[in-house]
Amino acid sequence: MNLDYIKPNNWSIIEEGFDSEHVKASESLFSIGNGAMGQRANFEEKYSGPTFQGSYIAGVYYPDKTRVGWWKNGYPEYFAKVLNAPNWIGINVYINDESLDLFKCKRVENFRRELNMKEGWLARSFTATLQNNIEVDVSIRRFLSLDIDELGAIDYNVVPLNAPATITYRPYIDTGITNEDSNWDDKFWDTLSVSFKEHRAFIQAKTMKTDFYTCTFMESQLFLNQKPLDITPEVDKSSTYFAFSYRAKVAQGEEFKIQKFGGYTVDRNHDKYDLVTAAHTVLDTAKDQGFDLLLEGQKLAWSQIWDMADITIEGDVRAQQGIRFNIFHLNQTYLGKDARLNIGPKGFTGEKYGGSTYWDTEAYCIPFYMATKDQNVARSLLEYRYYHLQKAIENAEKLGFKNGAALYPMVTMNGEECHNEWEITFEEIHRNGAIAFAIYNYYRYTGDYSYIPEKGLEVLIGIARFWHQRATFSTAKNKYVILGVTGPNEYENNVNNNWYTNYIAKWCINYAVENIEKIQSEYPTDYTRIMHKAKLSKAEVKDWVEVADNMYFPYSEDHKVFLQQDGFLDKELITVADLDKSQRPINQKWSWDRILRSPYIKQADTLQGFYFFEDNFTTEDLERHFDFYEPFTVHESSLSPCVHSIQASKLNRMEQAYEFYLRTSRLDLDDYNHEVHEGLHITSMAGTWMSIVEGFGGMRVKNDTLTFEPKIPEQWEGYSFKVNFRHQIIKVNVCQGHTHFELEGKQDLKIIVNGKPITISPNNLVKV
Amino acid sequence: MNLDYIKPNNWSIIEEGFDSEHVKASESLFSIGNGAMGQRANFEEKYSGPTFQGSYIAGVYYPDKTRVGWWKNGYPEYFAKVLNAPNWIGINVYINDESLDLFKCKRVENFRRELNMKEGWLARSFTATLQNNIEVDVSIRRFLSLDIDELGAIDYNVVPLNAPATITYRPYIDTGITNEDSNWDDKFWDTLSVSFKEHRAFIQAKTMKTDFYTCTFMESQLFLNQKPLDITPEVDKSSTYFAFSYRAKVAQGEEFKIQKFGGYTVDRNHDKYDLVTAAHTVLDTAKDQGFDLLLEGQKLAWSQIWDMADITIEGDVRAQQGIRFNIFHLNQTYLGKDARLNIGPKGFTGEKYGGSTYWDTEAYCIPFYMATKDQNVARSLLEYRYYHLQKAIENAEKLGFKNGAALYPMVTMNGEECHNEWEITFEEIHRNGAIAFAIYNYYRYTGDYSYIPEKGLEVLIGIARFWHQRATFSTAKNKYVILGVTGPNEYENNVNNNWYTNYIAKWCINYAVENIEKIQSEYPTDYTRIMHKAKLSKAEVKDWVEVADNMYFPYSEDHKVFLQQDGFLDKELITVADLDKSQRPINQKWSWDRILRSPYIKQADTLQGFYFFEDNFTTEDLERHFDFYEPFTVHESSLSPCVHSIQASKLNRMEQAYEFYLRTSRLDLDDYNHEVHEGLHITSMAGTWMSIVEGFGGMRVKNDTLTFEPKIPEQWEGYSFKVNFRHQIIKVNVCQGHTHFELEGKQDLKIIVNGKPITISPNNLVKV
Repeated sequence: MNLDYIKPNNWSIIEEGFDSEHVKASESLFSIGNGAMGQRANFEEKYSGPTFQGSYIAGVYYPDKTRVGWWKNGYPEYFAKVLNAPNWIGINVYINDESLDLFKCKRVENFRRELNMKEGWLARSFTATLQNNIEVDVSIRRFLSLDIDELGAIDYNVVPLNAPATITYRPYIDTGITNEDSNWDDKFWDTLSVSFKEHRAFIQAKTMKTDFYTCTFMESQLFLNQKPLDITPEVDKSSTYFAFSYRAKVAQGEEFKIQKFGGYTVDRNHDKYDLVTAAHTVLDTAKDQGFDLLLEGQKLAWSQIWDMADITIEGDVRAQQGIRFNIFHLNQTYLGKDARLNIGPKGFTGEKYGGSTYWDTEAYCIPFYMATKDQNVARSLLEYRYYHLQKAIENAEKLGFKNGAALYPMVTMNGEECHNEWEITFEEIHRNGAIAFAIYNYYRYTGDYSYIPEKGLEVLIGIARFWHQRATFSTAKNKYVILGVTGPNEYENNVNNNWYTNYIAKWCINYAVENIEKIQSEYPTDYTRIMHKAKLSKAEVKDWVEVADNMYFPYSEDHKVFLQQDGFLDKELITVADLDKSQRPINQKWSWDRILRSPYIKQADTLQGFYFFEDNFTTEDLERHFDFYEPFTVHESSLSPCVHSIQASKLNRMEQAYEFYLRTSRLDLDDYNHEVHEGLHITSMAGTWMSIVEGFGGMRVKNDTLTFEPKIPEQWEGYSFKVNFRHQIIKVNVCQGHTHFELEGKQDLKIIVNGKPITISPNNLVKV
Repeated sequence: MNLDYIKPNNWSIIEEGFDSEHVKASESLFSIGNGAMGQRANFEEKYSGPTFQGSYIAGVYYPDKTRVGWWKNGYPEYFAKVLNAPNWIGINVYINDESLDLFKCKRVENFRRELNMKEGWLARSFTATLQNNIEVDVSIRRFLSLDIDELGAIDYNVVPLNAPATITYRPYIDTGITNEDSNWDDKFWDTLSVSFKEHRAFIQAKTMKTDFYTCTFMESQLFLNQKPLDITPEVDKSSTYFAFSYRAKVAQGEEFKIQKFGGYTVDRNHDKYDLVTAAHTVLDTAKDQGFDLLLEGQKLAWSQIWDMADITIEGDVRAQQGIRFNIFHLNQTYLGKDARLNIGPKGFTGEKYGGSTYWDTEAYCIPFYMATKDQNVARSLLEYRYYHLQKAIENAEKLGFKNGAALYPMVTMNGEECHNEWEITFEEIHRNGAIAFAIYNYYRYTGDYSYIPEKGLEVLIGIARFWHQRATFSTAKNKYVILGVTGPNEYENNVNNNWYTNYIAKWCINYAVENIEKIQSEYPTDYTRIMHKAKLSKAEVKDWVEVADNMYFPYSEDHKVFLQQDGFLDKELITVADLDKSQRPINQKWSWDRILRSPYIKQADTLQGFYFFEDNFTTEDLERHFDFYEPFTVHESSLSPCVHSIQASKLNRMEQAYEFYLRTSRLDLDDYNHEVHEGLHITSMAGTWMSIVEGFGGMRVKNDTLTFEPKIPEQWEGYSFKVNFRHQIIKVNVCQGHTHFELEGKQDLKIIVNGKPITISPNNLVKV
């Protein structure tokens, strides 16, 4: 589907004109969230056309029983997946007893939907003519409060245009919902009680098996021409559903409004017996403030986020809209308030990938959160894995590892593996490396070493043990090899000596050893505690080093490049440019075996290693590898173009860098992969941020110093971004020809620009 | 479970004593079949304990909708699987209105079950004391007629021992049955009509989707003390069920007998509207002959099969029982009467593997059927694939091949692929080679070249085209390579240059070219027809030859062996002997990745190639490869020990050959793989036959001449077998020290024994 119905706009996503074909895509694009909950942009009123209804609560999941064609030893029994949560947004609307349903109206005109990213609200308005010929003007605004993250608010207005009408609002809450992707059509929610008091209603429900207790609640207020209206509602109650009906006779041209507050209280934040009480408290606050004041608070909260996280681009509205769309959705998904939460690949916008945590968090999201939030946010993300260490050890034990070796799951909610493709679950083990790399990256960026003796070293030890045990000695090569893996490029399965995997394995061991030594000398108490807890001996560490020192790396003397894996050069090396366009995307056109034996690369693999470990290679090395691998890369993963954009910027190939940037930043807005109706690609949005800041801006941290090599695509007049570096905020403004640096911190900061040291002082613009 | 409750016996499988824990295993072991239908040895009367009810009709299958965890492009939508057929064997028995149910009796004594392989019947007898304290003697005999293969017969007798009793027989037929392994709990059978006439009943049903029409029928006769008894039955009829109830007062010590005839008429043999009429005809014949005469016919028919197919072993009753068990079940499964049928891995004994056709037929079963039946039987098996050629071409097209390239399915019922593991479905392509090899093997053995110009060459062309397109050129190796395959050893997936696959690919091309040339010169009319139909040009054939001539084979100079695949020597080469026993079988103890990166071989792979193409290698070559690969082979496939037994015999390692023989011949009787309750391993039973005739007997056909190199395990006094070679029958009797040859044919036959030519004359014993 072509998504050019979305209007280019600097600050908003705007849809004009109603087309039922667009509904599912728009439901994804216009999704709203506040880190604690989120929803697809489903209509409040009934809609009988094709729709994908989805509301989600952070951290509330269900272990769906695994369903596979052919069981393999070691598969997890369950796949923890994000649950479709009870519905609290519903407001059915009846005009003279005819249900307002955009799919069934005679006419829908002036339809407009806006997701205002600057202020954090979703609005919709239209003029509809019903089958009964009543014409109504309808306008709705909805937001999920950042300040009170258990609360959402809806302002819903109907004006009968051509006749007086009896209008009924029927706000409801409903726990009788299911997941689109249930394996066995199981029921996931067990409703415990349905109750109401005056204009408030509550449904308590718990998830089956996982026993997450929730209370879904609502309260509504009615207005006629902005004046409060006291209507005694009818009540409709079933075992999983509660609705109030508010009925009023409305004269032609009068505005009948309902303001509905709703949301969830959950036992992650409250005692499970106090959820109704907590809901009352939320509603008391909401009612005290009222919709308008809450909305003012929402605008303020978003302005604070934008103040730090915004990236401006001048002269290219599509590029501007793209980056803001990415930053907006990242902030809707995760705000770093709770170390028990993480970032699902689709956030709160869909159910695919189960809403669980992947290595995306460590490889792509952490840099974004480090630079645009307080460093505690990134630290929370690291702690998430620390709390899962024991489960990672148990996961490795299931696969035959021992002695505290840890293999973090490919996909997880609670630390347990919940994926079931052998070539991924058992073999895409490089994920373990990203988790160690994130610890390094956090320290490199924040300078906060305390995390490593406190928590990180235990993780590093478990990971180093895994790699030591996972490598085997090849007599033929007289080196350690890592057999049977899937690298970041998932278009290769069960290969031997994936260069990226071997490289990060060696690096993980070296980094663990380096930190063991540092902590031994600098944090002796922690050292003793950790060595005792991990039962780690010097002899064992020596064995690790033996493996790291003798790791094998496939290399081509002819091409002077590291090979993605053993045997890569045996492939038919036909470039993507020479591949018939009718064959693309290959994952929709080719059978799996054909993809596997082709040279085509789904996402950066060797180049991902050059991104993580760029200091270990020269620019000439990078150029050679970029020239070798880029022509075979089909970028059929959302995580691919951003890395290539960064590398192209580094190599001064700005036209290519710009193309990759557009592709990553507008992946969903332009629906490159024809799947936006399933939800958005949240984690790759952080890659988009990196492609500007690290790509065009050339920002790195070297030896505790921020460095920049600013570049700019010729399509842009300028761009700017801010980063929070060690409690000081630096604003970078790049134009054609020069760059401004500005410091919001309190003390002078030495930075390096294009290799030259520069000192910037607080509130003093420096032009380079 | 330990199966040593099965008594060693030369001609029978005997179970003594009732143990409900044994029921499911015995249901498999005592299965009966007649090539057209078959059943697990379920009890006729109700049994409420753990049981796996299974009746099957040859060629009647259902396309079950595929269910996988992660869909891959190219997976078939449906998995055709053998259907659990309507039940006709049921006879519920009531003693004073208490249901006879061995799981609920107070006592079961003298329980004995016998599968008489010599005569082809199943018997069961026991003394049971019911909850009502009535003690009864029960004896049952059942067989599926070889002469009238739509008919089965049951003789069921009850004698009340300690009191008179009212005994009710309630014979029934039932089409309301399901499969144990349905993916979506679909209903497979659609019942069309339930009718009866006098003592006969009929249920017509068709399979959903595939529309196989069947009539399940029955008729019963009653006897008191062997005298016919005329009882007017009560009738019980539902939409999928019909039962007669025959009630009689039986004095203490009197024998009340029911003889039930039943079976299926199917639209493969009759017009779908004539199935009831056809059933009447079957029942008329059955009633005319009566149970006893039918049983005499059964014994005669089996004596004719045994006369040709029997292998005797003296001095080793377990070995004797093993080989007869194998030969018996092969003949129960497939008799070669219908080219539309084939041999499922579990025959009529279970549902696993869907009852479909695998490469087992070509690689293992054809030699058995060629030597023990008329050559038309093997020709029927070849024709089965010829009739599927167009589907094989379509299957290849789905995977991106073109121009008539054919890839036969891994698993099929009707020529369409119905398996769904990418590493098997798309990559275990060596199966295509076995189908070509069977054509070669058929001609080599029978001398009947006519099959190739008539049908076989078209198959060979499709297969050669596949290999030509599947190989790719490696610039690095300057050779053609075959990337991303699974060889016969399924403990390796997605490997490059599996030696067996590359070898058979090259061979297929060469063999196709050789036959094209031969047919051009010797069968010019066929040549013109086939070239026209296949649109094959000389230029294309030249391209094939280019690939075959430049095929790459991985080889180790150090070990002087071909490597199972690229990179095999990078593995940790720890032999099975050095592997902790607690880790076996690895397929139950290890996760899949660990199996894949280990050196352990599930079934003969390189050695399978040495078996197929032994003339191309010296005995020293074989010895080197055997010594290299055997120590890593775990034989966790039923198809493995037979090939190793043959190779060990060839290398004069008789102790090892004997061990492998026992393992293959008693695989199910001793339940090596802990899965006999799921059904028997039918196709590997043909491998058992090969391990005697080709292994110990050393039989080969070279240059149109039978050759032998007889050897004998020291545990045996002697063994004998017969083979049908080009319409003459040779009996070979090997003793310690000498071998007798005897010819049942009509003209002298030159054979070669231990390298020396010998002429044997009809009915003249020759001792060597």
